[in-house]
Amino acid sequence: MRPRQRREAFIIECGANYKEHFAWLQPCGNAFPHPLRLVSSADVPAIAIDECWEGMKRIFGENIWNNEAASAISLEIDGSLSREGYRAASDGAGGIRVSGADASGVIYGVFALLRELACGRCFYGANVESSPKVPLRIINHWDRTDGTIERGYAGDSLFFKDGGVSFDVARIVEYARLLASIGINAIVVNNVNVNGNDIRLISKEMIPEVAKLADIFRVYGIRLALSVHFESPVMLDCLPSADPLDENAISWWKRKCEEIYRFIPDFAGFLVKVDSEFRGGPQALGRSQAEGANMLARALQPFGGIVWWRCFIYNNLQDWRDSSIDRPKAPYELFKPQDGLFDSNVMLQVKNGPSDFQVREPNSPLLGAMKHTKECLELQITQEYTGHQIDLYSLASQWEEVFAFPSGSGRALSDLMGDEIASIAGVANVGLDDNWTGHTLAQANLYAFGRLAWNPRLSAKDVTEEWVKLTFGLDKKVNEALPDMILRSRKVYEKYNSPLGLGWMVNVAHHYGPSPEGYEFTKWGTYHRASCKAIGIDRTAKGTGFTRQYSAEIARMLEDARTCPEELLLYFHRLPYSFELKSGETLLQHIYDAHFEGVEDVEAMIELWRRLEKHIPKTAFASVSKRLEMQLENAKEWRDVINTYFFRMTGIPDKRRRKIYP
Amino acid sequence: MRPRQRREAFIIECGANYKEHFAWLQPCGNAFPHPLRLVSSADVPAIAIDECWEGMKRIFGENIWNNEAASAISLEIDGSLSREGYRAASDGAGGIRVSGADASGVIYGVFALLRELACGRCFYGANVESSPKVPLRIINHWDRTDGTIERGYAGDSLFFKDGGVSFDVARIVEYARLLASIGINAIVVNNVNVNGNDIRLISKEMIPEVAKLADIFRVYGIRLALSVHFESPVMLDCLPSADPLDENAISWWKRKCEEIYRFIPDFAGFLVKVDSEFRGGPQALGRSQAEGANMLARALQPFGGIVWWRCFIYNNLQDWRDSSIDRPKAPYELFKPQDGLFDSNVMLQVKNGPSDFQVREPNSPLLGAMKHTKECLELQITQEYTGHQIDLYSLASQWEEVFAFPSGSGRALSDLMGDEIASIAGVANVGLDDNWTGHTLAQANLYAFGRLAWNPRLSAKDVTEEWVKLTFGLDKKVNEALPDMILRSRKVYEKYNSPLGLGWMVNVAHHYGPSPEGYEFTKWGTYHRASCKAIGIDRTAKGTGFTRQYSAEIARMLEDARTCPEELLLYFHRLPYSFELKSGETLLQHIYDAHFEGVEDVEAMIELWRRLEKHIPKTAFASVSKRLEMQLENAKEWRDVINTYFFRMTGIPDKRRRKIYP
Repeated sequence: MRPRQRREAFIIECGANYKEHFAWLQPCGNAFPHPLRLVSSADVPAIAIDECWEGMKRIFGENIWNNEAASAISLEIDGSLSREGYRAASDGAGGIRVSGADASGVIYGVFALLRELACGRCFYGANVESSPKVPLRIINHWDRTDGTIERGYAGDSLFFKDGGVSFDVARIVEYARLLASIGINAIVVNNVNVNGNDIRLISKEMIPEVAKLADIFRVYGIRLALSVHFESPVMLDCLPSADPLDENAISWWKRKCEEIYRFIPDFAGFLVKVDSEFRGGPQALGRSQAEGANMLARALQPFGGIVWWRCFIYNNLQDWRDSSIDRPKAPYELFKPQDGLFDSNVMLQVKNGPSDFQVREPNSPLLGAMKHTKECLELQITQEYTGHQIDLYSLASQWEEVFAFPSGSGRALSDLMGDEIASIAGVANVGLDDNWTGHTLAQANLYAFGRLAWNPRLSAKDVTEEWVKLTFGLDKKVNEALPDMILRSRKVYEKYNSPLGLGWMVNVAHHYGPSPEGYEFTKWGTYHRASCKAIGIDRTAKGTGFTRQYSAEIARMLEDARTCPEELLLYFHRLPYSFELKSGETLLQHIYDAHFEGVEDVEAMIELWRRLEKHIPKTAFASVSKRLEMQLENAKEWRDVINTYFFRMTGIPDKRRRKIYP
Repeated sequence: MRPRQRREAFIIECGANYKEHFAWLQPCGNAFPHPLRLVSSADVPAIAIDECWEGMKRIFGENIWNNEAASAISLEIDGSLSREGYRAASDGAGGIRVSGADASGVIYGVFALLRELACGRCFYGANVESSPKVPLRIINHWDRTDGTIERGYAGDSLFFKDGGVSFDVARIVEYARLLASIGINAIVVNNVNVNGNDIRLISKEMIPEVAKLADIFRVYGIRLALSVHFESPVMLDCLPSADPLDENAISWWKRKCEEIYRFIPDFAGFLVKVDSEFRGGPQALGRSQAEGANMLARALQPFGGIVWWRCFIYNNLQDWRDSSIDRPKAPYELFKPQDGLFDSNVMLQVKNGPSDFQVREPNSPLLGAMKHTKECLELQITQEYTGHQIDLYSLASQWEEVFAFPSGSGRALSDLMGDEIASIAGVANVGLDDNWTGHTLAQANLYAFGRLAWNPRLSAKDVTEEWVKLTFGLDKKVNEALPDMILRSRKVYEKYNSPLGLGWMVNVAHHYGPSPEGYEFTKWGTYHRASCKAIGIDRTAKGTGFTRQYSAEIARMLEDARTCPEELLLYFHRLPYSFELKSGETLLQHIYDAHFEGVEDVEAMIELWRRLEKHIPKTAFASVSKRLEMQLENAKEWRDVINTYFFRMTGIPDKRRRKIYP
């Protein structure tokens, strides 16, 4: 056993062995009181034993294992635990017993043990027991077979290249390990916008190729799923129609499922985007969403497969002149009347907000509204509207608020998870970049997704502190300062991007940087309708009536500008610039203030980060520093463009006389 | 000889034989009093004889030629005429004598004769004599070797495909004939933005391929030129530098010219875009524009080649906050101090306006300012900002104003043509579309370019009437109504696109349709800075000082909002919305009015076009009708977006209470 190292020595070692692609599974120089043996029952999967063996070495060094040691880590299956659950407890003889409900449970138990130990938490007397609140915890990749990733900010696809499946086995194993370590148990490897060659992923020729990916993920308890095009029977095999009531289409999907399951016996199912943003679908064929989804569900059902049916459907060819249409209303209006018509292996996949992964939105009223239909909550880990993995943005902070958002009858969304909402999906933020996520600190978002998917009641603070410790070690200065900087980053970004729920002032198409009227006259249904007098959309009962989709108690709160949460004020209300906020400032002055503060906050972040220089491994320090400088440029651009926009529009100066360009 | 047909019969025949790709060289059923022989002197080029033979048949039918006829068309060279000039006159014996100063002169004389006859003008006693006012009349193609065309709206490239030279010989012959018929004598076949594989067009391997195109154009008196990348020595042959003072770069270009002229002995020269919009160039290497241009000029000089050196150079990474920089000032500031430093075979190629081919601009102050340097006027035939060949837009009307714009000392730009401005270039509007130009009526723009390049004092009315007669025959109703509709189309488009020189409210990147603040916060230097109080850029001496680049008398006129041409008001002045125009209306009311009128005018055009249905060949009628409907949609979008924008910004309603969306 190694002697306990002095803090100084530990830090140097951490920096020296740090590799960005290890992410939160970094080698570290922690100490354990004595060496251990590893024992396991025969039904424990080999991968759990391997990961335990390698993981302990990563944390404590080679000498942690000694076959002659008196104490042991013992791995076992314990059927009395909840599905996928685990218990890790000291065995009273200097060792630790890790029990799993099943194969996955043992794997999760091993990673939980490693997490506890790497975080420096003492294990004696502890009894860590946990099982997932949500049975299906999925990563959605928006990767295309040409190797690019829609809304990807961390390099090309891990899975595809040049129109086909193409991957580095070692890299996929590393990825599967990372995902398993945070409790992910399913993965959709291709984009929901299934176009061109991507459609052929379920062709006879490509299924065996896809199966090679499934084979790797399976080892880590992760089931593979695919996004499919609803018109596949037409596009792949020239059937005359994909109509869900057409016998030919129905049997095509049945045969297709048989084909897929021959190669991927634990295939998780299909993710489907229809009738939206230029996709075909049942609606285009005069059928209901339920009829469309059930056709696929019935083909998958004999094999235990699931249909994740996306609810992100709206009129994307709206006329901006027509203020009677209100895009956030669309999913509820379409799906609520069909509640109860969906088969039991259909999950309606609903984005957290009714708009589209904005910095600030209310929760979708559809979440929890479907009392007789299963739902899947879709979160976006990749930073589409939230900074392109250039700007630091803590999604854990955002999701914590999403889970806390009221769902009626005094319940929060977190209370529905695992119950009415049986599944949770996160859109991946990873690519071939060395550090997986472009911005090294954006690894924290992937980490948080897995941890919160497992248990939506965990706090953003806890999971962020965990990630920092696992990634950068137990350095006190880093442990104290960095989680706080990450956690506050969401608020900072919101200040310069969309205070008061303003939204949609972003550049069209690529969704980074300010363009105050970029969306104002487009067909996307995303308007703020700012004039020289007022701004915002009235979504109350007197306006578009969107608030009516919420339960009465929530609607009441949102209806009144005095009780509506201020960060959502302009999402629900059209107000004059002189409207007085709780702070006593006018709405306009608040917008000015927020944009000035946003830049100051980024400057403070940079200052704080610089103070950590000697405590953070060089590669990570340099790459994060560079991105923080880019973020500062972006924050300044937001500040100046938005402030100038409103100053030009209103003629009202900043009362604190700061610089606004004329 | 055919009997003279009745009007009715003529029309039917015209419609029956009409083919869009014949453009203004349509077959027609005109009558000639008697048959003719064709005689020519030995030095007349075969192509002149061929074109005369075929052209007369096209106009008068097969029987126009009779070897036994008493009268003749005789073709001859007459060295006493001005270079490229011709004379066509009745010979007093029922025949016509066409004399050309040189080979090209005879060709132009033949096409002039055919034009006169097809237009139904009697030839007896007439004496048509002409020579070009501008010696170099060039078409610039923005075609890329991948087959696409930058700012092309009429299909893919005639010349390139899949990275190489690839063309249909018959199509290129047809194109050369069309160009020769309007007096074009040089052509640049590739894009000024020379990127990727396009750089290799002057490689050893590709020159022989390019030469095949030159061989076809040569027959029609058209010399081929190429756009080249200034960094070619580095990019093609890995030289360490393209520095114009570096002996290796200098001799590389010398050898390159020798290589080119071996295959293309009449090669016209190089078109070069440097130091602009992400191009490299001498400035980037610390050298002057003259040093850069002269290096190329000296390599071309022994062979009689020319360098067209573009002056479209400005800071395209401008900070919108900095109102001291004014993009239109850049070319004059850069080039004026270098006047006299350029070799005599360099032509500085200057866009007509100081901004960028906008609907309304003043003339560039650089035109005529270079007293010791040759210039080339660059016009844009392809409708980048002027309607994408969806909206009807008469460029002849615009160019007529460009030529009439004052150039100081009581002279108009037309007075400088052929003198200080020795060359004129037009950016092509053609592609592989059957009708060459997408919009059939956009053929009139190509036609007008050639005719005005030959003689800038021709009126837009005359050349447009000519084009209508040549294309659709001598139908009285068409001849009366259509030229007027085409000629007015520029004003119509201006009404809804950019009244009062407003400008830059167009969608960024593709440049079609409205986006009022699309450019406001970009780096392109193209701002209107509209606020709730005022709009426009003050470019007077009190503002950015741009007016100082003009001669004193012109500057005086532009300086004062009361004497500045109203259509340029907001180009030169920042004014309150209440500013009173000569009409008595406020500036804002004028903007509203113009946008409402624009739509009404398009509706009137559609009405007029419908009345011509029986008089226009079916294919042309249908395709133009379709585009007019698209134009109406566009005009409505401009009307509603721009009016809403200003209404929101000012809160001032339309005094005529028409619909403005809130």
